[in-house]
Amino acid sequence: MKRTLAIELPRHIGEEVRLVGWLHHLRDKGKIAFVLVRDRTGVAQGVVLDPSKVSVAGLKRESIVEVIGRVKEEKQAKSGVELEVLSVKALIEPVADLPFEVSRSKEKLNLKIDSILDHRAFSLRSPEFAAPFRVQAEIVRTFADYLRALGFLEVHTSKIVKAGTEGGTALFQIKYFEETAYLAQSPQFYKQMLVGAGFERVFETGFVYRAEDHATSRHINEYLSLDFEMGFIESYTDVIDVERGFLRALIENLAKNCTAEFELLKAQLPKVGELPEIRLKDALAILAKDYGRNTSGMVDLDPEGERQICDYAMKTKGSEFVFISRYPRSARPFYTMPDPDDPESTLGFDCLFRGLEVTTGSQRIHDYQMLTDSIRRIGGDPANFEFYLEIFRYAMPPHGGLAIGAERLTQQLLDLQNVREASFFPRDRFSLTP
Amino acid sequence: MKRTLAIELPRHIGEEVRLVGWLHHLRDKGKIAFVLVRDRTGVAQGVVLDPSKVSVAGLKRESIVEVIGRVKEEKQAKSGVELEVLSVKALIEPVADLPFEVSRSKEKLNLKIDSILDHRAFSLRSPEFAAPFRVQAEIVRTFADYLRALGFLEVHTSKIVKAGTEGGTALFQIKYFEETAYLAQSPQFYKQMLVGAGFERVFETGFVYRAEDHATSRHINEYLSLDFEMGFIESYTDVIDVERGFLRALIENLAKNCTAEFELLKAQLPKVGELPEIRLKDALAILAKDYGRNTSGMVDLDPEGERQICDYAMKTKGSEFVFISRYPRSARPFYTMPDPDDPESTLGFDCLFRGLEVTTGSQRIHDYQMLTDSIRRIGGDPANFEFYLEIFRYAMPPHGGLAIGAERLTQQLLDLQNVREASFFPRDRFSLTP
Repeated sequence: MKRTLAIELPRHIGEEVRLVGWLHHLRDKGKIAFVLVRDRTGVAQGVVLDPSKVSVAGLKRESIVEVIGRVKEEKQAKSGVELEVLSVKALIEPVADLPFEVSRSKEKLNLKIDSILDHRAFSLRSPEFAAPFRVQAEIVRTFADYLRALGFLEVHTSKIVKAGTEGGTALFQIKYFEETAYLAQSPQFYKQMLVGAGFERVFETGFVYRAEDHATSRHINEYLSLDFEMGFIESYTDVIDVERGFLRALIENLAKNCTAEFELLKAQLPKVGELPEIRLKDALAILAKDYGRNTSGMVDLDPEGERQICDYAMKTKGSEFVFISRYPRSARPFYTMPDPDDPESTLGFDCLFRGLEVTTGSQRIHDYQMLTDSIRRIGGDPANFEFYLEIFRYAMPPHGGLAIGAERLTQQLLDLQNVREASFFPRDRFSLTP
Repeated sequence: MKRTLAIELPRHIGEEVRLVGWLHHLRDKGKIAFVLVRDRTGVAQGVVLDPSKVSVAGLKRESIVEVIGRVKEEKQAKSGVELEVLSVKALIEPVADLPFEVSRSKEKLNLKIDSILDHRAFSLRSPEFAAPFRVQAEIVRTFADYLRALGFLEVHTSKIVKAGTEGGTALFQIKYFEETAYLAQSPQFYKQMLVGAGFERVFETGFVYRAEDHATSRHINEYLSLDFEMGFIESYTDVIDVERGFLRALIENLAKNCTAEFELLKAQLPKVGELPEIRLKDALAILAKDYGRNTSGMVDLDPEGERQICDYAMKTKGSEFVFISRYPRSARPFYTMPDPDDPESTLGFDCLFRGLEVTTGSQRIHDYQMLTDSIRRIGGDPANFEFYLEIFRYAMPPHGGLAIGAERLTQQLLDLQNVREASFFPRDRFSLTP
């Protein structure tokens, strides 16, 4: 008899089916018993009408069970159906005590992040702990599909590099045969090179590495970066427009495919509104005027300022996302295009979402001479960047791009307390396992 | 005036359009001149009917040019159209001599792989050098789409690990804060853990790392692995069947979306046939009987044997792919399920394609006791695998999976001499840049 999945039950009303999955929960009330079976598609409710005939005694939680039953309509069940259990059998049993009960709510379990991660695979059996990864997969899929439809090519570029791209940021060192190498902080140079290689539009979904020492609820040392880069742009706002389109497509897809996850986690789909852009200096003026902040000397938004400007964007533009643009040159990497209206400013931007930065992007410098000057300006030697610079000698188009942190976007979408809840096996200052 | 792409010209016959791209080739014959413009979609042919009015003098190859022209039908052109050039202007010019002419054929250029890679981004401007990456993107997309349709979840698991998974294979060492860590050789443990975490079916497209010393035309030290793992299987042949389905879907998609690339590289789409499975001991018997090989003492196919068995599969089954199964236990990692018919054999398999292994997979051990015994059997200590083993205590379903090397599959599909032609920035014994 073929296996039927929990989600398929409503299509089999009146039929006898075979469910196989983990025993999520068992309530034996003597005269009646409820058997909840969990598979990859959800939890199915089975009811044992006569436990004297169909015994559930001795069944262990989280065993893999096989349940034969008949599907019945049941208005009170969320799925609209219930399974009248004809037989239940344990196929594979746990051989140790369970760390906790995955059928209890996240709120009731009230686990610290370390306890969740110490039993990583097991904790994911809780539908609430698993939900962020279904949402993240939808983010990754939408990113790829949306960009492909715009003519972007998916690429995969090496994560073992001879030098960093972002200047100051700390690097993880690798022993690469006789040489010293580093884990890539971003695919920045490579994606620009591939624009110049003639692909014009490329995207990459891959891990990047920052050997930063901080241990906060929004930093991990290995994170999934959704990167794209596009040539023949007329302005950095072309790049922002692609992100706007992606975010709108994402919200649509989440509304279509992830309502269960949002409901389970009591999270709200974001309000997108017009996805406004506010220049940094205007944002600082708003903080001073509307939020009473003393912004003198501020060259960037502090975490409080990020929350305040998000509040402002929501109140005035109905958008939980806001693009902050034209960051000062001192705060941006050397390859960022200076602002033609103000040489101390750049055509760089961030996207903030619910008070947190989830994207960094910019128009880049495409002129060879300007780029080598910019390297020298920060005390660098263009000779060290030769592999990157070469293609700029052979005519690079105006281009720009951005990077979105997948775990952070997941965290903000689902209002997760810790970004680690959106990473299967997070790496931080103190975690190398699991 | 909006930019029109090369591929869009046939839709604009009779209209005036604006092309922007790189000057691929220029033939100035005095009374007439041909201007070839390359963009991300292909090469468009422009014709200058009166070079005394529309000057092409001084235009440099690989400049970014803007061409205004009128689209005309032209039966002799491959695209069916030609652009009558009204004006041409260089927007951005190279500032150095070009390493070589990207409009020349790969055959005529006759470059060594090192020369191609020394100018990596520039060499990709050659449509022939770029083609493998369009095919590879199609492989990656098909893999994801095909598996998602079967209920697989896309996952991304850490590439920084405390220990290797494959036993003997050499590892790249990372300095991870105060600890020593390694680059992951495969997502093997993680994908199994995520099956047991309740996702049942997961796939991952990501880099894996092998610090092997060899320098051959089919090895690189960082390669893109297409991995999947599935639970609740009845046999290792369920895993093979998913790969069969994927390969069929891939060939269909390549026939639909990549004919230009196959034509350009004079490559043939593979014949799929029935995608046969041959047990290793039967394969060895075939080598002895039909190919006159002395197979006594052979426990695996050697490279010659791989080519011969592929030849056999093509001749007898019309398939350029062949699955070889039931490898000996000594040749397979500890987590491979032993063959119930022969405890010295396993339920492991490879997929060979045109004489080369492109896939390794197996049913895995799911029983906790059997798995810890298997670790001890190879001299290991289960305590060192605790993070992996934990979920096996809480009821793991029968499961299996496989990994496909994306660059190798690309190489074999396109008959590339060197796997590096299918890697943007290959890492090998001697290459850390570009």
